Amino acid sequence: MKLIGNAVVGQSGGPTAAINATLAGVIEGCAELCELGLIGKLYGMKNGIEGLLNEALCDLTPLFNSSDRELLKVTPAAALGSCRRRLKSHDVDGATYERLLEIFKKYDIRYFFYIGGNDSMDTVYKLSEYAKGQSYELRVIGVPKTIDNDLQATDHTPGFGSAAKYIATSVKEMRRDVSVYQVKAVTIVEIMGRDAGWLTAASALPNITGDGPDLIYLPERAFSFESFIEDVNEVLKTKPAVLVCVSEGIRFADGRYVAASGAAADGFGHVQLSGAGKVLEHLVKEKIGCKVRSVELNLPQRCASHIASLTDINEAVGVGKSAAHLAKDGKSGVMATILRKPGESYSAEFGYADISLIANEVKGVPVAYINERGNGITKEGIDYILPLIVGEVNIPYENGLPKHFKID
Amino acid sequence: MKLIGNAVVGQSGGPTAAINATLAGVIEGCAELCELGLIGKLYGMKNGIEGLLNEALCDLTPLFNSSDRELLKVTPAAALGSCRRRLKSHDVDGATYERLLEIFKKYDIRYFFYIGGNDSMDTVYKLSEYAKGQSYELRVIGVPKTIDNDLQATDHTPGFGSAAKYIATSVKEMRRDVSVYQVKAVTIVEIMGRDAGWLTAASALPNITGDGPDLIYLPERAFSFESFIEDVNEVLKTKPAVLVCVSEGIRFADGRYVAASGAAADGFGHVQLSGAGKVLEHLVKEKIGCKVRSVELNLPQRCASHIASLTDINEAVGVGKSAAHLAKDGKSGVMATILRKPGESYSAEFGYADISLIANEVKGVPVAYINERGNGITKEGIDYILPLIVGEVNIPYENGLPKHFKID
Repeated sequence: MKLIGNAVVGQSGGPTAAINATLAGVIEGCAELCELGLIGKLYGMKNGIEGLLNEALCDLTPLFNSSDRELLKVTPAAALGSCRRRLKSHDVDGATYERLLEIFKKYDIRYFFYIGGNDSMDTVYKLSEYAKGQSYELRVIGVPKTIDNDLQATDHTPGFGSAAKYIATSVKEMRRDVSVYQVKAVTIVEIMGRDAGWLTAASALPNITGDGPDLIYLPERAFSFESFIEDVNEVLKTKPAVLVCVSEGIRFADGRYVAASGAAADGFGHVQLSGAGKVLEHLVKEKIGCKVRSVELNLPQRCASHIASLTDINEAVGVGKSAAHLAKDGKSGVMATILRKPGESYSAEFGYADISLIANEVKGVPVAYINERGNGITKEGIDYILPLIVGEVNIPYENGLPKHFKID
Repeated sequence: MKLIGNAVVGQSGGPTAAINATLAGVIEGCAELCELGLIGKLYGMKNGIEGLLNEALCDLTPLFNSSDRELLKVTPAAALGSCRRRLKSHDVDGATYERLLEIFKKYDIRYFFYIGGNDSMDTVYKLSEYAKGQSYELRVIGVPKTIDNDLQATDHTPGFGSAAKYIATSVKEMRRDVSVYQVKAVTIVEIMGRDAGWLTAASALPNITGDGPDLIYLPERAFSFESFIEDVNEVLKTKPAVLVCVSEGIRFADGRYVAASGAAADGFGHVQLSGAGKVLEHLVKEKIGCKVRSVELNLPQRCASHIASLTDINEAVGVGKSAAHLAKDGKSGVMATILRKPGESYSAEFGYADISLIANEVKGVPVAYINERGNGITKEGIDYILPLIVGEVNIPYENGLPKHFKID
């Protein structure tokens, strides 16, 4: 059970506001294992598995005893760099696995931590399966990360709460903004989420105080131009400023993306895809004819650390730390998870799940969280998301801007 | 000199994160004048001059002694509502002026405060000119507000600092985000500013710590596709992730907007204008062929109160208060201004300027703030903007979201 050696940690997939908090958590957990004499050094892979294959490693051991870890927790995006590379299966590309094993042996790496989303968990799965058959003991642990909140087996994913807080705050502020005029106007906010509508659902949170969107559409329900225009006209009967939030991934009953229907030739004669928001902007102009604007929240959704959720950041640290504890306890081929405890007030604990249950699966917004008409979020949905955005992080500022930590 | 009566205040033009702080300042100043026995009541115009003409007034006097004013200061967008209406000249539309005078008499209004940008200052100018010729004494004061920072006679405008802080913070966070991959990629951020590049210039601030954009283009300098592609290719020689910030209003040497060159037929067969960022995105795809993305910061630029600049909010309150003092001192037909004091460290005081010098004029970014190549901001430019984003506002949160104040 007692395994002595070094550890390596990597970050993979799209960055978030909390992925560095999870890295800090893994570092904290490994510092504990170091105290116990289990871990010597903690290496960081530069740009995920790709960097590991090139032996692009940095030494994170100095962070075992450094207050820099606090700054790392509130720094957005992957401080170690990221990659989009997925391991092919061992049958197809055995050489890569052998190369990895060689590197593990060379650096005496016995603990492997990989922070990421669906694709990254596939890498964790394949590597842990391969490791099982080797005489070299390696413990392979996945740590969840994705703003999309679409991973199975965990109540929610680190990164989601902070993105949700940014979105809900921005939507509330835009509600104030669009409501100042008396002229009929429709504002359409496009929110990230190709397959799952979790982030768009978070736009409903300001509705608790009546400051949210009038209409919300998720990819989980078939979209129709006709119903949409009906819905907007219905709201226009009661107020001049209509605020709509849509997922980038909304699609028609036949499965085509709404975004794809906006294909248009650009100034260079090439066909370009508009976003879903742009398509609906043009539709409203065409069918209703009032003032209309579309807003794509875009990259800031996943990196706006300045308004990170304290709950999210704390849990992101916690789940990273718990990954180290799982490795200490002999686990491999698992992902650390966050479990919501039953009860009136929100609390969570950490658990784990077999990685094979998670890799490549997508968890959508449940039916009960979407209203009957498919244009809003139910109280049950709001109750699920709300606790995840609670609390503000104390961000250090310098020259009026948030300070960030950089790993060289 | 001593004028006794009621006061009215209105908000006009596009909302900002600081326009309510200025409203709170006017209320504070009027509370002082009330103490002195000069002002009885303070009315708020609903939706600016349009509401005044409809006698859509609310009573702000209860806010003379209310802690709600603190919440108002950090609430984005115009709490009184806004309008885009400009007064026609008296020659053309005398009836509107007579109607206004009638209303002033009816409500015993002697003090008129109007918070706004260029267009609103035109209204202040015309009304103050008209008032001069009347036997009914009315003091008409303009109070500056615009994220665009393009008003003459004031060192800067309330609302600019907060928008600049949001932009600089978002750009710094996006720099982190786009730098995680090793794949060549260009990210183009489009920032508000049709005629003046002040907000885009603010994107240079994170460059103090090397975390800003590689290239910055403002409307003050002629834009060329060829130089732009040259610039991007030059940066790509040194790093994979290029970050570019452009004003929405960049234009070619012949005066045409870059945005206009991206006209494309949409899915409904109508010609739609792209933004400048979108046009450049397509250009990079065409000419360089690497991964490219454009991000339009859009509405959050002007309403992201959650990251307001403390300097901006304090000055916004101060300039509103000073407007009341100017009125007390017998001024009319003036705009309250912010003056930067000479010296090493930043400090400001309040002044005023004749409204005729301000109305309809636009102040662009000076030549000295833009580098020779026209693709970056000089140290002088950074030194001018930096103090305006310094300091963070203590925002009250409820349910994980910023609290806002609403005037019924």
